[in-house]
Amino acid sequence: MKSSVMTTKKAVVLLSGGLDSTTALAMAKASGAECYALSFNYGQRCSAELAAAERIAKSMGVAAHQVVNIDMGKIGGSALTDDSIDVPEDEPEGIPITYVPARNTVFLSFALGWAEVLGAQDIYIGVSAVDYSGYPDCRPEFIAAFENMANLATKAAVEGEPIRIQTPLMQLSKAQTVQAGVALGVDYGLTVSCYQADDIGRACGKCDSCRLRIKGFEDAGQVDPTLYL
Amino acid sequence: MKSSVMTTKKAVVLLSGGLDSTTALAMAKASGAECYALSFNYGQRCSAELAAAERIAKSMGVAAHQVVNIDMGKIGGSALTDDSIDVPEDEPEGIPITYVPARNTVFLSFALGWAEVLGAQDIYIGVSAVDYSGYPDCRPEFIAAFENMANLATKAAVEGEPIRIQTPLMQLSKAQTVQAGVALGVDYGLTVSCYQADDIGRACGKCDSCRLRIKGFEDAGQVDPTLYL
Repeated sequence: MKSSVMTTKKAVVLLSGGLDSTTALAMAKASGAECYALSFNYGQRCSAELAAAERIAKSMGVAAHQVVNIDMGKIGGSALTDDSIDVPEDEPEGIPITYVPARNTVFLSFALGWAEVLGAQDIYIGVSAVDYSGYPDCRPEFIAAFENMANLATKAAVEGEPIRIQTPLMQLSKAQTVQAGVALGVDYGLTVSCYQADDIGRACGKCDSCRLRIKGFEDAGQVDPTLYL
Repeated sequence: MKSSVMTTKKAVVLLSGGLDSTTALAMAKASGAECYALSFNYGQRCSAELAAAERIAKSMGVAAHQVVNIDMGKIGGSALTDDSIDVPEDEPEGIPITYVPARNTVFLSFALGWAEVLGAQDIYIGVSAVDYSGYPDCRPEFIAAFENMANLATKAAVEGEPIRIQTPLMQLSKAQTVQAGVALGVDYGLTVSCYQADDIGRACGKCDSCRLRIKGFEDAGQVDPTLYL
């Protein structure tokens, strides 16, 4: 039997602990990449989300999981990090108040730094332009612009190994995401989508994120294993 | 006398406490902007730098100064944040080991978030493509790509108020930067450039950053008020 030298490709995967990022992680794994999960403690109200990210990273066998502490609260301006703003049950049209200023830009920037250190070429982020909340930093033109910038920002890119921002959910509806994840064996009972879940991960069933999730499972014809209050 | 409603423009200024960022702050002030200084505690070895940033922010009368804690150390890979890597006195050609992966990308991303919350349209960063250390994220093409991305990332930009990344030092040599700062009354005795200054801000005089600073003052025909060990 001949021996062959295989270089395992590496991927940094942004993992919030929600439905989308967990599905993106399953897809990164399915591509054969060695996965490095990256989560953020950024003053979000919901600590159940980070606990979910840790459960998921462990159960899905990532090579490493980092939880980076960042002070988004010092910047303020969002219902997700600012206790003086309520999470609304019904959002008006336009960009919602749960939008965190520059959040995906900040998260992708850290992912870029870690990718450079690891020698990873792929960064996975579970954004979708279909069933999404209207955040500007979830759109394909934002992702393309970030990738372009990333390839001018880094030593690795300058020396010839381009970074790719992988968005496998971009063109999927929530229902299609659920179907893809179920096909890959994702245990959605480990995930937390709610903006205001309680400490053990039970969801409100009312916020924008819960409503998108509930509808996604319904449309996919799948049972949502979430516990709703 | 007629009364007129003046809207003061706001600028977020990245302030490390070094020569360049302090000069950029002086230029932002000179433009008439209300300045919001942003510094980072990112596990850099040199705490004198942050103390300098606080002195400078106070003495130059900024509207607010935030020091954001971020875990760059978890990502690793640079002599500036990783204690197992020595700061070299003589760098080989190419991108140096003091380069912090994606640092300016991360810093600008936080500045973008704060600019959005404040309603600031300008972000100042004291990078130069002339007398610089070879970091890829100091080049004009990186800045242009970041600005393009920023204007797709944010609620403000989407709703019509573009963000500008201001790089007033981009085409200045270190000597020209010193001359411009002296003309604006900058007290360079408050600034710390050294990668390994001691706790009271005394500089090594040997690292790349010290050598660029010393030469800049010499070429400008100005006295460098830094205390060298």
